[in-house]
Amino acid sequence: MHNSHKAALVVDLGGTKIITAVVIPDGSVVSRNYCLTLANDGTEAVINRMLSDIDAVLAKTGIKTSNLCGLVVAAAGIIDTINGVIKTSPNLPGWRDIPLRDILANELGIAVYIINDASAAALGEHRFGNGKGVDNLIYLTVSTGIGGGIIMAGELYLGTDGCAGELGHMTIEPQGPKCNCGNSGCLEVLASGTAIAKEAERRLGQGEVSAILTLVDGRFGDITAKTVAMAAKQGDALACQVVARTANYLGIGLANLINIFNPDVIVIGGGVSKMGEMLLKPAREVAKKKAFQMPAQTVRILRARLGDNAGIIGAAAYIFDCNRV
Amino acid sequence: MHNSHKAALVVDLGGTKIITAVVIPDGSVVSRNYCLTLANDGTEAVINRMLSDIDAVLAKTGIKTSNLCGLVVAAAGIIDTINGVIKTSPNLPGWRDIPLRDILANELGIAVYIINDASAAALGEHRFGNGKGVDNLIYLTVSTGIGGGIIMAGELYLGTDGCAGELGHMTIEPQGPKCNCGNSGCLEVLASGTAIAKEAERRLGQGEVSAILTLVDGRFGDITAKTVAMAAKQGDALACQVVARTANYLGIGLANLINIFNPDVIVIGGGVSKMGEMLLKPAREVAKKKAFQMPAQTVRILRARLGDNAGIIGAAAYIFDCNRV
Repeated sequence: MHNSHKAALVVDLGGTKIITAVVIPDGSVVSRNYCLTLANDGTEAVINRMLSDIDAVLAKTGIKTSNLCGLVVAAAGIIDTINGVIKTSPNLPGWRDIPLRDILANELGIAVYIINDASAAALGEHRFGNGKGVDNLIYLTVSTGIGGGIIMAGELYLGTDGCAGELGHMTIEPQGPKCNCGNSGCLEVLASGTAIAKEAERRLGQGEVSAILTLVDGRFGDITAKTVAMAAKQGDALACQVVARTANYLGIGLANLINIFNPDVIVIGGGVSKMGEMLLKPAREVAKKKAFQMPAQTVRILRARLGDNAGIIGAAAYIFDCNRV
Repeated sequence: MHNSHKAALVVDLGGTKIITAVVIPDGSVVSRNYCLTLANDGTEAVINRMLSDIDAVLAKTGIKTSNLCGLVVAAAGIIDTINGVIKTSPNLPGWRDIPLRDILANELGIAVYIINDASAAALGEHRFGNGKGVDNLIYLTVSTGIGGGIIMAGELYLGTDGCAGELGHMTIEPQGPKCNCGNSGCLEVLASGTAIAKEAERRLGQGEVSAILTLVDGRFGDITAKTVAMAAKQGDALACQVVARTANYLGIGLANLINIFNPDVIVIGGGVSKMGEMLLKPAREVAKKKAFQMPAQTVRILRARLGDNAGIIGAAAYIFDCNRV
């Protein structure tokens, strides 16, 4: 079988769960498995869980490794794509400089690629989702953190080491709160799901009144971006203000990306994007007001289409691309 | 003569002067002329001055238009490269939606291209200057304003309309001063030459004492980034603080670019870069501290090499590239 017709084996290595899947060249997911990551068990235990899930998926589909064009692992964090090393990952505490490509390639005897999950999702949306066929696409995932991916002239741009696209770590408020990356006032610490929950918590802690507290039965620790979104949908004033604040910061980040990249499309994915137009409409308005007129008129700011499968499908697209060249 | 051996005619259309030159494919400038722009005379007068300077340069070199691979005009501002239109230019008041490509092509009967001057300079530094041969280069010109250019995978990236690379218009301080672009707190309004002069003026206006005032004989209106730099070199405390403040903002902008692009090189040009290490050393330190470790270790932050010729040589490189394809 020619490589270009072979299926791709894909692992989405997340902080909570590991998804293992087989994807065929038209972007269809033909098999999908998952297990818990249990990252605290340590690197070796997690890698063993990946390997046994890979075995399970291959057994289920009856595909032999010789009939795969390779394995791609998509993970959050700073990935040295060139050398296949996970440098650091916010979701995988203790993972530092793990040469995952070589470890897995030795075990499986196939080509292995390691890629940032948001870069993978950018490629997924470009090949099979809401940016199909455009030249220039920026992908922003707004979730626990904020990640990004860059497609330029139709190709995924990964930078010199393979870690380009850390769009959540633009400083947009130098005096802003400390970010997990060590810097201050990053887009991520101002507009992520975590930021939404924290801002609601902060204001409730000052004694402000809101339906959010009822939704979590008074338990501050249970407040998430989702609870804030639910309260905002009910018209709760504090929740609406928190969403508006998030939309404003997101709009500033989007304006920066419009001025820098003059893209056809910005696709927004991740859990927080499920708020939909309640968040995206004001964010779009801020972005279009702040950016230069010509690129602001050109860009379409859309929600992601592939949802939770964007990373898997995009990672597969990455390996299909590598084999095409 | 094959197109790839032909010379390029280049015009650098600035707010103060118009430089007209002939550049040959090895990047050498074989002839160079200039006249004052006198932009207040209006669009037509300026275009006529360009045309008569083009005639003068061609007469001087004895090159016929049939022996040119074309004309490139590099100008500051938002350029619709696809359609050859100057949308707006900070240096050319009153120029809005001027279809300069078609006007000049009709007059001269040769291929004409219009390109942003900082994008041209990026290409110049990549082909003939301090980023020769690297894959990924970001060019930042720090001058009256702040412009930028992006080279990715060895090619100039211009975005969907041709106006990508407005790196001076990242918002990095949302509550910051109003920028000429209409937004607030852009890198340009915080770290450009104009920003340096304004900050010095503001503090002197509050009665602070500094050698700057002596350098300008007490005339506030004569304070420029250059005067501030001179005073800082003499150890003047206020001037040193203004330079440090500029370096800090510049460092934030650089960190954003490192996290977004993971480039091999960032080249800094423009008049303000002539301050040299006094500005670049602290800016580099801030950038490397704020950005992620891997891309921060990779990137080299260098001064531009081509100086005032970067735009001209880069614009010529653009037309050589167009003819190569």
